[in-house]
Amino acid sequence: MEFSSKLLENAVNEMSQLPGIGKRTALRLVLHMLRQPKEQTLDFTKALSTMRTEIKLCKSCHNISDTDLCDICANPNRNESIVCVVEDIRDVMAIENTSSFKGLYHVLGGKISPMDGIGPNELNISSLVEKVKLGAITELIFALGSTMEGDTTNFYIFKQIQGCNVKTSTIARGISVGNELEYTDEVTLGRSIINRIPFEASLKS
Amino acid sequence: MEFSSKLLENAVNEMSQLPGIGKRTALRLVLHMLRQPKEQTLDFTKALSTMRTEIKLCKSCHNISDTDLCDICANPNRNESIVCVVEDIRDVMAIENTSSFKGLYHVLGGKISPMDGIGPNELNISSLVEKVKLGAITELIFALGSTMEGDTTNFYIFKQIQGCNVKTSTIARGISVGNELEYTDEVTLGRSIINRIPFEASLKS
Ligand SMILES: [Zn+2]
Ligand SMILES: [Zn+2]
Repeated sequence: MEFSSKLLENAVNEMSQLPGIGKRTALRLVLHMLRQPKEQTLDFTKALSTMRTEIKLCKSCHNISDTDLCDICANPNRNESIVCVVEDIRDVMAIENTSSFKGLYHVLGGKISPMDGIGPNELNISSLVEKVKLGAITELIFALGSTMEGDTTNFYIFKQIQGCNVKTSTIARGISVGNELEYTDEVTLGRSIINRIPFEASLKS
Repeated sequence: MEFSSKLLENAVNEMSQLPGIGKRTALRLVLHMLRQPKEQTLDFTKALSTMRTEIKLCKSCHNISDTDLCDICANPNRNESIVCVVEDIRDVMAIENTSSFKGLYHVLGGKISPMDGIGPNELNISSLVEKVKLGAITELIFALGSTMEGDTTNFYIFKQIQGCNVKTSTIARGISVGNELEYTDEVTLGRSIINRIPFEASLKS
């Protein structure tokens, strides 16, 4: 692509570094910005740069938060003895939408995936294991997507906390095998939380 | 969508105002940014805000440019008596890619489209008509997409310059009817420029 402007070229190159956005789409988006009032682009870039520099992760559950402790962890009405283990904050949002869960979350930040170079140390696993070993958690619900990486991650954590006095369960496989949580409809997802089964039982199925 | 962070919510809302980007995709893109180093997001936002505030339009052809006169208009080797009329800068880029045209361009900034509230005054038409009336242009090539709006725009301009001593042509309809220029492959597009026909002849076909 030959550009008549370095400024335009830089903007398109940056835009096309977003996942799923090719050069052509990037150009279309940038030209759209040029047709809108300046303020709109400046609002856009300010919202993103502020978000990126000021956003925090909850000290307890690693959920994205504007404060040290996220709204869910800070809510006295949530049952802090039940912890739902999820891959990322989209899963927290998806489960919250179902209104079927009143415990807390633990956001791993990904799944174990040797192919992508993601091992247990790249994820928020040790802080979870510590929390379990403190003994205040009575049940851990594994709510990762039903993929090979999800199963591997569940099993890795399960091994780490063996001997601890904690019940483990996985959300019911109402989720179609191979699917990510975020693409599951609310009803199925809500039901799969209510019908969760002991993790050991899930290994046999 | 319920967000655990105002900063995140703002970022997703801004991102989802881009055309073709829904809330879910916006969230995916923003979370991607959170996984990348801070500097990457700041480079991204800086490139876009700088582009939006500092970019210029060529005083002569309305092409996007970093200088008052774009590289094409400023190039002494281009034939300034042939002017190719296009909808937007993507069309300039597409035609330049074919290396089949050595004249100058005139970027209208859109097509006449009453449905979208775009009339002749919203486009760079009067500056084109003025240029033609100065008499230095010997040929005007209409290279708008082969859609109803394109035809309407061609015809409107054609009427405005009637009586002027200028040859008008449209690029050959190698372009499939109803298609935009930017989706046409280079060979077809290059050929359609070389095989251009007098505009009057195109009205009969
Ligand atoms: Zn939290
Ligand atoms: Zn120019």
